[in-house]
Amino acid sequence: MRIHLDHNAGAPLWAEARAAMLEFLGPPANPSSAHRDGARARSAVAAARAEVAALIGARPAEIVFTSGATEANNLALRGASLTGPLVTTAIEHASVLETATALAGAGRTVVVVPVDAAGAVAADAVVRGASSGAGLVSIGLANGEVGSVAPVADVAGGLRGSGVLVHTDAAQAAGRLPIDVDTLGVDLLSLSSPKIGGPAGVGALWVRDGLDVSPQLTGGPQERGRRAGTENVAGIVGFGVAARLARAELGTAVPRMAALADRLWEGIRMRIPGAVRHGPADEPRLPQTLNVGFSGCAGDSLLVLLDLAGIAVSLGSACAAGAAEPSHVLLAMGLDRAAARSALRLSLGPTTTAVEIDAVLDVLPSLVAQIRGQAAA
Amino acid sequence: MRIHLDHNAGAPLWAEARAAMLEFLGPPANPSSAHRDGARARSAVAAARAEVAALIGARPAEIVFTSGATEANNLALRGASLTGPLVTTAIEHASVLETATALAGAGRTVVVVPVDAAGAVAADAVVRGASSGAGLVSIGLANGEVGSVAPVADVAGGLRGSGVLVHTDAAQAAGRLPIDVDTLGVDLLSLSSPKIGGPAGVGALWVRDGLDVSPQLTGGPQERGRRAGTENVAGIVGFGVAARLARAELGTAVPRMAALADRLWEGIRMRIPGAVRHGPADEPRLPQTLNVGFSGCAGDSLLVLLDLAGIAVSLGSACAAGAAEPSHVLLAMGLDRAAARSALRLSLGPTTTAVEIDAVLDVLPSLVAQIRGQAAA
Repeated sequence: MRIHLDHNAGAPLWAEARAAMLEFLGPPANPSSAHRDGARARSAVAAARAEVAALIGARPAEIVFTSGATEANNLALRGASLTGPLVTTAIEHASVLETATALAGAGRTVVVVPVDAAGAVAADAVVRGASSGAGLVSIGLANGEVGSVAPVADVAGGLRGSGVLVHTDAAQAAGRLPIDVDTLGVDLLSLSSPKIGGPAGVGALWVRDGLDVSPQLTGGPQERGRRAGTENVAGIVGFGVAARLARAELGTAVPRMAALADRLWEGIRMRIPGAVRHGPADEPRLPQTLNVGFSGCAGDSLLVLLDLAGIAVSLGSACAAGAAEPSHVLLAMGLDRAAARSALRLSLGPTTTAVEIDAVLDVLPSLVAQIRGQAAA
Repeated sequence: MRIHLDHNAGAPLWAEARAAMLEFLGPPANPSSAHRDGARARSAVAAARAEVAALIGARPAEIVFTSGATEANNLALRGASLTGPLVTTAIEHASVLETATALAGAGRTVVVVPVDAAGAVAADAVVRGASSGAGLVSIGLANGEVGSVAPVADVAGGLRGSGVLVHTDAAQAAGRLPIDVDTLGVDLLSLSSPKIGGPAGVGALWVRDGLDVSPQLTGGPQERGRRAGTENVAGIVGFGVAARLARAELGTAVPRMAALADRLWEGIRMRIPGAVRHGPADEPRLPQTLNVGFSGCAGDSLLVLLDLAGIAVSLGSACAAGAAEPSHVLLAMGLDRAAARSALRLSLGPTTTAVEIDAVLDVLPSLVAQIRGQAAA
């Protein structure tokens, strides 16, 4: 039995989402087909669109299904505002930062706002950065590595009436924090299916009614001309179910996950000398994300030993794993490279149990001691 | 029991592909994760990559998995050649023609080569069109509406050494014609998973070794930096199985489909006065694609009656269905709008049976007569 403490890289697929997908993994189901197989696919996509919209307090027509949050972020950054500086922060996901780099290479001005030692970004710094006629501000709602929550509503409020568009990547926030697009006051919002227990290969960009985005995939008229390509019907259906479950479970899952994350951190703090928690000390933060540095203990070695013990964790964003570089998020928070390399991300999910947490606490201290002992030898 | 004569819009998912996908619709499987769940996903993606490469005589590392053929075509047209005119033909899929239109809007010169009355394009016309320093030629290997096969190898041969890149959209050709990238001599080739009985939401662009493509989705380092975003592992696995089956069955499925398509056309020709077959009269053509005009009979009405009788067909490309316009392919072949509106596409697949063909032939003549009678009344 594996213990999955890597939900921020991808949650297990909900059984209910899987069952719904199976209905569309068989007979042909192209929503563009005029016959009844096409109609069946169309209505399933419409139902999923309503579920995804409901998760964030939006209207179904505002949802553009994509192949994932990476594509949603690309569509927002490349398609929503074609001129004016792009303002973002130093701890964004690779799909925002690399896209900003690509746009900078194409001549766009890019402003990257720093964060403090807890991974927090100051709303007024972002607003100031955007004051010189920015086209778009892109700021992640919650950071998937350290759990910090950005003051997105304050940023959007500070920019109201300025003409600057505000995009937020909510891939890591969905299912873990309540999200309402009107409360946030943003113009664009990205979602990921696998982060909330839907299938991989699906995501969405919410685009406020009335705002045009320039399609980055051109071809057929799918998604109201905002994203061409035959719909991944099974994937979209699974995403819809996951969105419904995320909304239904938010009230119960979040306090449960928060309590288990606290139990995990308390256990680590009590049993492992020199363990430090990176990220915000208090709320607001992701309720189930724990980033812990074990000084003198290489994170990659610890990851391997935990893996052998049946426990899946990560060093940071999966999208940068394999790279030799330590987490850009931890470096942006001011950690030196050695400290960043000793950090581990443990991310819980709605299916995580106290038994699992206690099992992790049973093995983690001796594994850390083992690696520290080898390093000292 | 439905009879699916709309394989060119999407084939049923192979049972074996579905079974393989189920292994990855459950536990988390992010190939970027360093732990063993990630390793399991990585090796499944690698195996699928090898199967897809084998279908077209390519090397695995040359395959870039995408969200579908639309994204593959966009990546080829937008990413492979950033300057120089783009040369294409009048009967390409929307994802090529609309992308060409978008590039033209951004200042790129676009040359659209016409076709003859049978949907054939002349290789020398394409070569001539590309002679003035074109950056890229994009020409579909086989047309999914009328079944014509383009002289791609001749085009590539005529342009060898010129520096012009040649891309072919093989979405409709795969599984129906043998494909070998070296025989074709092209630089880029697009594939679609659902067209060969894999799941929707997946496709691939083959990029000849040594050729750079500028990624259109930026972010993580997936697909060797050519396409960012967490891999759709289940979808890719299903695509791999479908590619293997397509390769294994090509020798037996193609003659069987061709014989059934001939049987269908002969039956229509004998029983329905005024039926005309659009597209090439002989090989080379898609063995299982039949485009038939029923003069005086509106195609959309016929589609609805066939649908009620349990038979799924289409008016043309599903990606343009719902649009009020008749098929751009038939118009490019010189049909007038009334003739184009009376056409129906019947596309068979490897699972189509003689019993199904005979069932269609039993009902089609009376349905055509019924609509013609209403029109005359």
